[in-house]
Amino acid sequence: MELRIGVIGCGAIGQDHALRIHRKLSGARIVALNDINLAATHAFNDTSRLDAKVYENYQDLINASDVDALLLASWGPAHADQLLACIAAGKPVFCEKPMTTSAESGLRVVEAEVQAGKKLVQVGFMRRFDAGYRALKKTLNAGTIGDALMVHCAHRNPSVPEMYVGDMCITDTFVHEIDVLRWLLDDDYVSAQVVEGRKSRNAHAGLHDPVMVLLETSKGIRIDTEIFVSCRFGYDIQCQVVGEIGAAFLPEPASVALRLEGRASTAIQTDWKQRFIDAYDVELQEWIDATQRGQVNGPTAWDGYFASATAEACVEARHSKAIVPIRLAERPAFYSK
Amino acid sequence: MELRIGVIGCGAIGQDHALRIHRKLSGARIVALNDINLAATHAFNDTSRLDAKVYENYQDLINASDVDALLLASWGPAHADQLLACIAAGKPVFCEKPMTTSAESGLRVVEAEVQAGKKLVQVGFMRRFDAGYRALKKTLNAGTIGDALMVHCAHRNPSVPEMYVGDMCITDTFVHEIDVLRWLLDDDYVSAQVVEGRKSRNAHAGLHDPVMVLLETSKGIRIDTEIFVSCRFGYDIQCQVVGEIGAAFLPEPASVALRLEGRASTAIQTDWKQRFIDAYDVELQEWIDATQRGQVNGPTAWDGYFASATAEACVEARHSKAIVPIRLAERPAFYSK
Amino acid sequence: MELRIGVIGCGAIGQDHALRIHRKLSGARIVALNDINLAATHAFNDTSRLDAKVYENYQDLINASDVDALLLASWGPAHADQLLACIAAGKPVFCEKPMTTSAESGLRVVEAEVQAGKKLVQVGFMRRFDAGYRALKKTLNAGTIGDALMVHCAHRNPSVPEMYVGDMCITDTFVHEIDVLRWLLDDDYVSAQVVEGRKSRNAHAGLHDPVMVLLETSKGIRIDTEIFVSCRFGYDIQCQVVGEIGAAFLPEPASVALRLEGRASTAIQTDWKQRFIDAYDVELQEWIDATQRGQVNGPTAWDGYFASATAEACVEARHSKAIVPIRLAERPAFYSK
Amino acid sequence: MELRIGVIGCGAIGQDHALRIHRKLSGARIVALNDINLAATHAFNDTSRLDAKVYENYQDLINASDVDALLLASWGPAHADQLLACIAAGKPVFCEKPMTTSAESGLRVVEAEVQAGKKLVQVGFMRRFDAGYRALKKTLNAGTIGDALMVHCAHRNPSVPEMYVGDMCITDTFVHEIDVLRWLLDDDYVSAQVVEGRKSRNAHAGLHDPVMVLLETSKGIRIDTEIFVSCRFGYDIQCQVVGEIGAAFLPEPASVALRLEGRASTAIQTDWKQRFIDAYDVELQEWIDATQRGQVNGPTAWDGYFASATAEACVEARHSKAIVPIRLAERPAFYSK
Repeated sequence: MELRIGVIGCGAIGQDHALRIHRKLSGARIVALNDINLAATHAFNDTSRLDAKVYENYQDLINASDVDALLLASWGPAHADQLLACIAAGKPVFCEKPMTTSAESGLRVVEAEVQAGKKLVQVGFMRRFDAGYRALKKTLNAGTIGDALMVHCAHRNPSVPEMYVGDMCITDTFVHEIDVLRWLLDDDYVSAQVVEGRKSRNAHAGLHDPVMVLLETSKGIRIDTEIFVSCRFGYDIQCQVVGEIGAAFLPEPASVALRLEGRASTAIQTDWKQRFIDAYDVELQEWIDATQRGQVNGPTAWDGYFASATAEACVEARHSKAIVPIRLAERPAFYSK
Repeated sequence: MELRIGVIGCGAIGQDHALRIHRKLSGARIVALNDINLAATHAFNDTSRLDAKVYENYQDLINASDVDALLLASWGPAHADQLLACIAAGKPVFCEKPMTTSAESGLRVVEAEVQAGKKLVQVGFMRRFDAGYRALKKTLNAGTIGDALMVHCAHRNPSVPEMYVGDMCITDTFVHEIDVLRWLLDDDYVSAQVVEGRKSRNAHAGLHDPVMVLLETSKGIRIDTEIFVSCRFGYDIQCQVVGEIGAAFLPEPASVALRLEGRASTAIQTDWKQRFIDAYDVELQEWIDATQRGQVNGPTAWDGYFASATAEACVEARHSKAIVPIRLAERPAFYSK
Repeated sequence: MELRIGVIGCGAIGQDHALRIHRKLSGARIVALNDINLAATHAFNDTSRLDAKVYENYQDLINASDVDALLLASWGPAHADQLLACIAAGKPVFCEKPMTTSAESGLRVVEAEVQAGKKLVQVGFMRRFDAGYRALKKTLNAGTIGDALMVHCAHRNPSVPEMYVGDMCITDTFVHEIDVLRWLLDDDYVSAQVVEGRKSRNAHAGLHDPVMVLLETSKGIRIDTEIFVSCRFGYDIQCQVVGEIGAAFLPEPASVALRLEGRASTAIQTDWKQRFIDAYDVELQEWIDATQRGQVNGPTAWDGYFASATAEACVEARHSKAIVPIRLAERPAFYSK
Repeated sequence: MELRIGVIGCGAIGQDHALRIHRKLSGARIVALNDINLAATHAFNDTSRLDAKVYENYQDLINASDVDALLLASWGPAHADQLLACIAAGKPVFCEKPMTTSAESGLRVVEAEVQAGKKLVQVGFMRRFDAGYRALKKTLNAGTIGDALMVHCAHRNPSVPEMYVGDMCITDTFVHEIDVLRWLLDDDYVSAQVVEGRKSRNAHAGLHDPVMVLLETSKGIRIDTEIFVSCRFGYDIQCQVVGEIGAAFLPEPASVALRLEGRASTAIQTDWKQRFIDAYDVELQEWIDATQRGQVNGPTAWDGYFASATAEACVEARHSKAIVPIRLAERPAFYSK
């Protein structure tokens, strides 16, 4: 039985996901599309030969009887209402990150889901599905390096467009570390601090770059992350976990090593789209498989809310230059494992 | 339109491939099974829920009107006749390596295919579909290191079973390098030499291990390959191409780097089944896709014949300790690109 | 003309230095020894065949007419008075780190030297003489990675003795980074913060381990250093400088790479005495050579004072958990280059 | 008591060695110089302030009563007679490689030394003193990888001058591997084969480059060495020993790792003079120290003869394209350990 999926939001990422399901993954089919740009959605439906039905409004799509599950790739501010509609309809939904644009609206999604009595929402934090992060987690869980004590990370982009400004280093960039490190360490955050380094001349006017974010977890683990989005040299994601008896590193992507012009070298990826492209495949395939079993086994609404709340604390810490406690609503037993 | 596939030979690898197509790949379906062990085949069909038809003999399966294409995973000595039957039936066939157990029978397959006027056979040399070898070929084709001059390889296994003896270092092991290096360099071999190194105490009685094979190509490229199947430390596949201005290396599989007990380390795989597992997926998916387009874009019958002829020369060279010329039938224009 | 050296303090490091000069370096000779343990000093003089004169008190040694220069390896609290005596005698002196045990006494040495009108003191921060740090500085100075923006360091020891407690992570351990990073970046520090990570179960009772120290420089460069002295896995000194267009790393010491038991690995040193042993040789040879030319070309009294003042700020930051400004006396023009 | 050394041959390497002893090493002094270019030798003596006596002929220098030991850096064809004169005078002599330009003349040196009843000759194969090769030998001797079975080497230069032609790839280049591998493996060679690879367009007219040399040892160890002296990318010395349970690699020289322009890289040296510069220091210091104890602890006259005989077999193998046995005079018991 193929899972019949409706896609809400057919911009770049929505189309990517739709084609991924259509051409590459098994067990699901795209049957419905919706986007505020109706003409473009029809065009996409035609050129990609999806043969889906195009809906003028997302409510009808959500409620369509031949739609089993939803894939939300609309813009962030629309997520909260759309998620609440999916929950109201009792339909599983995969929601691209961020789940919501505020912790407050994230909490409403959590509460609706608890009310509904069933986990329906999965949030699109794809790093949890990356082979490298999974291998790192496996190493930690095996006790190979003992208990984690410190984590040193870097999130580097060669450059960002002019529209990338202010707090986006937190809300667009660091939010990935927020989710994946919490999962990796199986721990929650209790405080955040942001330190602005010397500004690079390559950072555009509206941006202080690089910055360093410091997180403390409930177990006392200290996490430092360099965020440097005009680093020029590559899309470079680093994660080193220091444990009681050793250190473990996120794998570097495999590449052809060269000996050339006086240097022995390997490649650093430069295109972020390539870095986690396999993770997107795994993420959606596992979502399809779990959904067919009536389960959610990826990041939940609670994880989405936690990420938003942590990001808000980081933003506050960036502005106040103080150490900001991370305060959350009480975790419903519903989200216990 | 799904490709309807019949599987001949349902041992370990046949079952792997059938399940791969059934559960993971798109565009094809297993509709027919055949194996000399009929009971086991029925059992496999049931437990895997393939819902395929089990045939008592392979000719009926090949000729079944609802079978579009064949997957041959029977034992080597049966391949030649089965391939000729597929060609006679005009049906595309994916044949596990080796294509045939002798160059002579390989040539008969080639001749039948030429006679049929259509490429139907693809041989299961999966390394051509490995991301690492593909990246290496891309580097060579880009001219990054200039023209290739020498190639240094190693094919190492932690250990082999007692049944692995004599010439199997060539026919079972080195045959992978024979195919993939020819493809990598876009060149043919002209001579072979085999040098037996000091025998390891870990090599069992019937085996001289390690050995070194030297190949020369028509362009004069020199290839040396260490074959060491009781190396203990890992399943370690090395390939270094030395060009006019640089050297390029087959990527090492990505792994979690550790700092532990006075060593900084990364993993070497130990299970050969893991090393090329992704390549098997790509190989069969591309075969399905190409077959649906009426094409063969993997190793052809000619490649299968070439591999057998080269392996025979290597075996002769191992016994004679001489440099043995590699002589082949003339390449039919049919196999030109 | 050989430089005639008197050694004050003949414990482990004093003996090491004396033997280094006696047996390995050129241009100098040990002519005088002093230590509070007179018997041991006589014994050392005999067994090492130094044929030096043993003095009962250091003042006489400093003033001896056949002593051209001093090497101070006594315990830290004695340094200040001994340095002032050397300066009063107008004699060059190499002083093991720390120069003094407080910033206040360090400032007195600085003032005495300024008064004397001549640089006489060199402080034993040996990392400036390490080939790796020098290569890193050369890379930075060449502009290869652009201006430095952030620096990520680690200072890890497998373990420390029970007597290593409290603030020694700063005063004994981090003091090396304090000096070498200031030299590496050609910059001064303006503030310090210390973050205590989750305590390792391997840290002994009197020690919070690991900790993270954050320094800010006058140019805004942010430095984070993990100090982890019960890390078990090695004596591991890391320094990564992130610049505007690239990152540069302190070289790992060369070692035999192994492929063994499923791992590809290189060695991490475990004995701190080995890590910088070549740097000690270079340090003292260059001191001998510069002293013969009437110069000081290593860390000066000002550098020694700066290190003490920074360490005091770090200690205060560790206790207060606040960001502590680093305030210094005005730098005398005397120490400008 | 300083060792008083006379230098015969004051070209580039002779001057280097003389200055090394004069300025950097301890326990020896240059007291005498000789070269066919008398004017240049006087000029060198003056500018370097050696204050040595310049001799018009080498016999007088060898016999001078204030010369304790000789350093031979004249051109190769002169070595045999000069060595015989040193032996006749009963004086220790350090002779730059090659000891002699033929195996036959090398054997005469061996016989003279045996006759004299005392080892006097050390040959300047400096790799035995390189920290990397020593670490590799230590690893082998410790049994870490089990018994050695195969050795894969590369000797690469960015380019060579036009005067480098024909067999110099053996006599000038590979001769270093010949000596150091025999020492590393503690084994002798029994046969040689040379395989000419595809010629690089960067190899000048008189040179076939690269070539591969295959050696077999008395224990059956197989050694393959790529010699590629127009490789462009660096002075790259590789040595991988494959043992029964693992593989060990000659350390790469330490260098600053960079992340820059999409590549993570380390340096490959490009200047051969830098690669073993520390080994020259160790080699001569140990020769001075051993000579003062009346010993030879580096490569002996027998080693020099063995290298010449092996090189001659390789040259023959290059021309004949056959596998050439390496036949030697019987090893005098005199050279047993």
